[in-house]
Amino acid sequence: MAYRALSEQEAVQYVKELPGLFEPGAELTSREIGDGNLNLVFHIREEATGKSVIVKQALPYARVVGESWPLTLDRARIESEALRIQYKHVPDLVPEVYHYDAELALTVMEDLSDHVLMRKGLIEGERYPHFAKHIGRFMAHTLFYTSDLGAHPYEKKTLVGTFLNPELCKITEDLVFTDPYEDAPTNNFNPLIRKEVEAIWNHKPLKLEIAKLKYDFLTRAEALLHGDLHTGSIFVTKQSTKVIDPEFAYYGPIGFDIGAVIANLLLNYAAQHGLEPDAGKRESYREYLLTTVEDVWNEFVSQFVQLWHKQAKERSAHVEGLWQSYVKRLIADTAGFAGCKILRRVIGLAGVADLNTIQDDQTRAEAERLALLIGQELILKRSGIEESTDMTDIVRQATARYDQEAATV
Amino acid sequence: MAYRALSEQEAVQYVKELPGLFEPGAELTSREIGDGNLNLVFHIREEATGKSVIVKQALPYARVVGESWPLTLDRARIESEALRIQYKHVPDLVPEVYHYDAELALTVMEDLSDHVLMRKGLIEGERYPHFAKHIGRFMAHTLFYTSDLGAHPYEKKTLVGTFLNPELCKITEDLVFTDPYEDAPTNNFNPLIRKEVEAIWNHKPLKLEIAKLKYDFLTRAEALLHGDLHTGSIFVTKQSTKVIDPEFAYYGPIGFDIGAVIANLLLNYAAQHGLEPDAGKRESYREYLLTTVEDVWNEFVSQFVQLWHKQAKERSAHVEGLWQSYVKRLIADTAGFAGCKILRRVIGLAGVADLNTIQDDQTRAEAERLALLIGQELILKRSGIEESTDMTDIVRQATARYDQEAATV
Repeated sequence: MAYRALSEQEAVQYVKELPGLFEPGAELTSREIGDGNLNLVFHIREEATGKSVIVKQALPYARVVGESWPLTLDRARIESEALRIQYKHVPDLVPEVYHYDAELALTVMEDLSDHVLMRKGLIEGERYPHFAKHIGRFMAHTLFYTSDLGAHPYEKKTLVGTFLNPELCKITEDLVFTDPYEDAPTNNFNPLIRKEVEAIWNHKPLKLEIAKLKYDFLTRAEALLHGDLHTGSIFVTKQSTKVIDPEFAYYGPIGFDIGAVIANLLLNYAAQHGLEPDAGKRESYREYLLTTVEDVWNEFVSQFVQLWHKQAKERSAHVEGLWQSYVKRLIADTAGFAGCKILRRVIGLAGVADLNTIQDDQTRAEAERLALLIGQELILKRSGIEESTDMTDIVRQATARYDQEAATV
Repeated sequence: MAYRALSEQEAVQYVKELPGLFEPGAELTSREIGDGNLNLVFHIREEATGKSVIVKQALPYARVVGESWPLTLDRARIESEALRIQYKHVPDLVPEVYHYDAELALTVMEDLSDHVLMRKGLIEGERYPHFAKHIGRFMAHTLFYTSDLGAHPYEKKTLVGTFLNPELCKITEDLVFTDPYEDAPTNNFNPLIRKEVEAIWNHKPLKLEIAKLKYDFLTRAEALLHGDLHTGSIFVTKQSTKVIDPEFAYYGPIGFDIGAVIANLLLNYAAQHGLEPDAGKRESYREYLLTTVEDVWNEFVSQFVQLWHKQAKERSAHVEGLWQSYVKRLIADTAGFAGCKILRRVIGLAGVADLNTIQDDQTRAEAERLALLIGQELILKRSGIEESTDMTDIVRQATARYDQEAATV
């Protein structure tokens, strides 16, 4: 079947014809639940049994802030293949893929609608006691087993070729690493923070560090990244964590994925200015977020290093001192990429709901200024970071400095 | 035509049938001039006009020190495609490809038999006044225009996929970065230097640095490398330089190519112990070699930086301070990779004629010990290197130390 966007009824018909999912003659209902900007997402359910699946179909364009531009359908292949690889390593942490259709750019997969997007949960002040353990394991296993440490060199190079993903990488290259740091037409920020944004555009040492991080993103093919691991790509319940939407998957620096998780926790941290009016509750939730940042890194690194010791196939992996020097670099990378991801969410094209739900422009500007300060500090101080608490100390100090400056104005 | 190794007569017939090379009915002679270990190389000539071409056909196995193992025919594709890309950037510095045949794993190309292999020339004490300028330009242009600096990100990623080259990379991974630094069965060294080799196997800080360089080789997809740029892959006359045999081409760290050139100049430098008995001539030739090392780096870097300033398409390339920090890292990489390439030629499977032509085992051992010392120093001291003279100073100091120690024994 040549590509065309399916209707709800066509989606039902499509699923009915797939072997092994529903009984012949099953009565199915369909509901389109996507945001319609990039993909169609059909929730297809058999009322009689309660059984359900998701049909996700890529649209041949992207629609952001009123603009529309063509976007490769190949991202549906990338997403389904990445999900299958991740499922091999952490089956409980990603949706199962039942079927992929290249021509329709369509994937039929496990329904996770009993979960909520983590970003939404965090905005509502929810806590997820298992999240750090889950996401640490997700990253440790998916990244280790696709890296030169855990994969045969032939397998790794085949995967590099499978996930070149030029179009979606270009979006990251532009929107995370380039546009926000100059007066680019894609930028979209609160006019009240123009002074702080312009200071970033003129901050030469910062721009140099960001350019180095961009070069690392462009060249360092370390492992198969999720590539867009923010809290809007993570479904959660109190008990369960599911990572979705890996259409940005490609071979890049490992710190980019870890940095994405940490950046989005810290964006929520900064947004607490406007999200939680009660000072006591705000401080307590911020402590929860910082502890989660530390736990995410600590869980990741302890599992990653354990895999390294027990499972590394690469013959040079066990040379004395290598893993320590690797981890030292990795935490610096993580902080640097986290910083870029924070800055771009405040200055660049695509904001985050954590900040954007703050109605009052002044209050939102305060949160955004704090985010900008944290992002910059993480980038500029990253080479001195050795432990996860060094990262959270940077956040605490930036917050204290910010509060002090705000008080003296 | 299904793959089979051609005879001399079949090679003539094949070339005759190609349009545009020779007139119909031309009288051609053929001579197989390869070493028969990896490829057949036919020199095909029309006596009447003096016109000639080379037909290079990959064999499906490699034969080294009596062993034989299967080797992908895909390397003929890699070689012909790499030559064509290099020809686009530096047409005077590589042979022109006239025809490539995927099924026969065969390339018809420009005949360079008026040139000699540079390794042979250096062993005979020849000097090549244009070499540094030529090879500097070869590397600057081929590396810059295939890097993220000079190529569009889509083009770069397509090239990464074209040149994954897993089998030949694996040879480098094993023979350059792993086997020589442990008691591997592939190693093949002069029994007289066992003590020095065992010291390397037990030198933990050295092994750590080599493991880091290996990880860089595995992960840093900076530019389309030649991948095997030693003096046996370079044809020269006094006026001309032609780089051949890029079947190891893949996306890797730029310093690996520059390091290969420098390593092979320094292997000849070390071999002067046995190649040139006259102390005065030896010193003079060594000075020539060290000046060439400096010139190779200086030519490369000045042309590369010039391209960066004038031709870089990457938007972040012009961020203040980036090229300086890039070059600083690059010279350290170059020295580190040069060091590995020196060590592996002394300890590992494939030696170099510069050393192996020294008949007397004792004299050869002296040259090899000096090479081992230089190689280690380049690796261990690489992060302090800023100028090409820092590299040659390391060589000079290692030589002085070596001479002193030899004198006191």
